[in-house]
Amino acid sequence: MKDQDYMKIAYDQALLARDNDEVPIGAIIVKDDQIIASAFNKKELQNDVTAHAEMLAIREACQTLQTWHLEDCTLYTTLEPCIMCTGAIIQSRMKRVVFGARGQRWNGLTQYISQHDFNHYPDISGDILGTECSQLITNYFSDKRRK
Amino acid sequence: MKDQDYMKIAYDQALLARDNDEVPIGAIIVKDDQIIASAFNKKELQNDVTAHAEMLAIREACQTLQTWHLEDCTLYTTLEPCIMCTGAIIQSRMKRVVFGARGQRWNGLTQYISQHDFNHYPDISGDILGTECSQLITNYFSDKRRK
Repeated sequence: MKDQDYMKIAYDQALLARDNDEVPIGAIIVKDDQIIASAFNKKELQNDVTAHAEMLAIREACQTLQTWHLEDCTLYTTLEPCIMCTGAIIQSRMKRVVFGARGQRWNGLTQYISQHDFNHYPDISGDILGTECSQLITNYFSDKRRK
Repeated sequence: MKDQDYMKIAYDQALLARDNDEVPIGAIIVKDDQIIASAFNKKELQNDVTAHAEMLAIREACQTLQTWHLEDCTLYTTLEPCIMCTGAIIQSRMKRVVFGARGQRWNGLTQYISQHDFNHYPDISGDILGTECSQLITNYFSDKRRK
């Protein structure tokens, strides 16, 4: 499958977040063309500040593979990872990160990687279904304000 | 209790990590002079790249308080938080962070805070029992290399 196809699956996870009244962000992790983890943002549902879609997917992938090394994995996420998720991505040695909408507030993945020197950092592709992923978040907050 | 007293309790958590063959880092979270969470690094035990002592303590505190807002809380950790834990700290709106040994590899809390502008960031105190906390980690890796 192509990046767009995998991102569409992450997007479907983001829709589940929206339907649960969470900020609509979804993520999946792929290894050898298999989806080994999928998650949506559950910060409110779980009362857990760490329960971002990417973090939940990373934790699930670690359990699936029974290791914290995710060298051969690709993370698809509908929003550019924040600095917390960036730390988890780098430390897991994730091979590749593909994101949809570009982050703005949290000085996330791309900025952090560009400013630091690591033994390992992932390949990054951004703006994959970026408009759709961004619009989903914008619509969510517009609806919130209207209510 | 004083910072040193709380840090000693975080240090005792770090000893539990060492006894479980984990990199010896411990953390506790205090609110209104009560310890509401305590944890040690379980990255290997749980096969989970996110299972740093600080992250586990933050997640426990969220469950204890049933909210992801930790505004009135202080995190004590034996090592300066990495960038992942820094992200969780900032997003939880933690009031204060007290750490033992200063971090070196991960461009952690103090560097990140100094370079960015946030609506909220925690008060930070470092080098509390710093020598003891640092020595514990150094000894752990020396023992590892000897074996």
